[in-house]
Amino acid sequence: MSAGPASSAPQAAARLAAGVQAGERRALARAITQVERRTELGRELCERLFAATGRARVVGLTGPPGAGKSTLVAALTGCLRAAGRRVAVVAVDPSSPFTAGALLGDRIRLDDHAGDEGVFVRSLASRGRLGGLARAVPGTVTLLDAAGYDDVLIETVGVGQSEIEIVGQADAVVLISLPGTGDETQMIKAGIMEVPDVIVVNRADDERARAHARSLRRLRRPVPAGGWEQLILLTTATTGEGVPALAEALDQLQAHLRASGELERRRRAGLRRLLLELALEDFGAELERRLAAEPALEGLLDDVCTRSLAPAAAARELLAR
Amino acid sequence: MSAGPASSAPQAAARLAAGVQAGERRALARAITQVERRTELGRELCERLFAATGRARVVGLTGPPGAGKSTLVAALTGCLRAAGRRVAVVAVDPSSPFTAGALLGDRIRLDDHAGDEGVFVRSLASRGRLGGLARAVPGTVTLLDAAGYDDVLIETVGVGQSEIEIVGQADAVVLISLPGTGDETQMIKAGIMEVPDVIVVNRADDERARAHARSLRRLRRPVPAGGWEQLILLTTATTGEGVPALAEALDQLQAHLRASGELERRRRAGLRRLLLELALEDFGAELERRLAAEPALEGLLDDVCTRSLAPAAAARELLAR
Repeated sequence: MSAGPASSAPQAAARLAAGVQAGERRALARAITQVERRTELGRELCERLFAATGRARVVGLTGPPGAGKSTLVAALTGCLRAAGRRVAVVAVDPSSPFTAGALLGDRIRLDDHAGDEGVFVRSLASRGRLGGLARAVPGTVTLLDAAGYDDVLIETVGVGQSEIEIVGQADAVVLISLPGTGDETQMIKAGIMEVPDVIVVNRADDERARAHARSLRRLRRPVPAGGWEQLILLTTATTGEGVPALAEALDQLQAHLRASGELERRRRAGLRRLLLELALEDFGAELERRLAAEPALEGLLDDVCTRSLAPAAAARELLAR
Repeated sequence: MSAGPASSAPQAAARLAAGVQAGERRALARAITQVERRTELGRELCERLFAATGRARVVGLTGPPGAGKSTLVAALTGCLRAAGRRVAVVAVDPSSPFTAGALLGDRIRLDDHAGDEGVFVRSLASRGRLGGLARAVPGTVTLLDAAGYDDVLIETVGVGQSEIEIVGQADAVVLISLPGTGDETQMIKAGIMEVPDVIVVNRADDERARAHARSLRRLRRPVPAGGWEQLILLTTATTGEGVPALAEALDQLQAHLRASGELERRRRAGLRRLLLELALEDFGAELERRLAAEPALEGLLDDVCTRSLAPAAAARELLAR
């Protein structure tokens, strides 16, 4: 093989992929940056490493700001580590610069595990859009899975549809609910109560939290045939109370998902979405490339700007060419 | 023309379009719902009404939660009404069910204008994703413009890239900044300080707000050649102080944008993005349609699920077919 520039890109990908598979933290961090920036190298890495994936358990955790999510993720990480599992945490943040303080808070608490080689924490919080960040999640999970982490925890802030979509890429979904805000009805309306496998009410030391848990139990989704009954758990992340029970529940859930075939079904659905998204992305890039060299676009745009042609009609004409 | 089912859709579109142009509020509300749900009728309406647009002034307003945005929008609406202008407000919310309280708050305050036929308020806050809502904005603006509103105010919560992207579809952008949070550096890092034409610091009665305004003045974007110097204004929306000056500034800004050709340039750039998005959307729908009937997809997916084919490679193969 030549050492010329033509082969340097695949060589770089091969080296970095080998580093990721060997569990080298710096290689992993660099590889994730490539995925996050959606570079050619990032795609190449995911493609090379995909065959080495499918082993990690992927858990999505979401909840409104202030629900104690970060503390819980840190405590859960401690529990999983105690059981000898290697844990990666991916924190997805829609990159509002105004959340920088909160993010720093997260990291400080997760920094309890900073000296632990068995914990890898990565924040996807750069200047991308939430949609962009969501697209970086499957690639990031691929890399962490290939790097041999037993658990990949995807943490998002907020419980809108975007966040639900992100955690929906996981094998299992945990919602951290905030007591005392009367949001249960809103969550049901938004269809959010149907998504999580486990709902955690943090701050079990508060009577309001216990009342909240009771009302959530009444609002559980119907159990699908042969399915998993939504669990409502109480924790106090600051003291660690209830966190081992959450870890235990996640083990039972994964066993259930695997035995019932639901895990395979969920993963297939996720890969189907990913495949279609990638195809669309490829096509979009191709379209942009062709249009850059296409004088007809500017002509169509002239007509749109003078309002003599509607954008949708111009789009159809563009595609027809 | 036949009254059969084949012609009922175009007939419905023609009737609804006529209602929108006649300024009928119920027709407008129904039309926006079609756009929001991204139905065929919604697209048809936008296409029919596009020729009647380009007259409204479109202003995007964004800022972090708690900056006093809603109160300011309500006060500004009052000012514009006093000048005889008809005003439409589009509130874009990423549909976290946990913001329902805040939204209700917005509506109550904007409800000061509820009896006023010259004010139309619409919240795009249904179950869509923020990305989905962003895509509903151009169509909604088209309808409001065609309905004859002089001003269309697009209001978003938050100052992430998604929100900037949404307000970036407007002719002019106003950022409502929150004093005392030390976020200026974050905003500069995120490139957000470069976007707004006007930055409003609310709560002028607070010394911290005045200090914040002074530091923002030092951080202003460089004035582009023949361009508009970013204005930093102080308001107290609750008392209305400074709001007439904001309305005045918006008039001057629009005159400047028009005279300098910048308005045309911005609108062309916006329509260019829209055209490409619509083309991509059309293609995506076509791809989904074909794949639904395509047995090859399931075969490719089988190979992806067994990890013998990477999703990106499967996507390429899919496109090649």
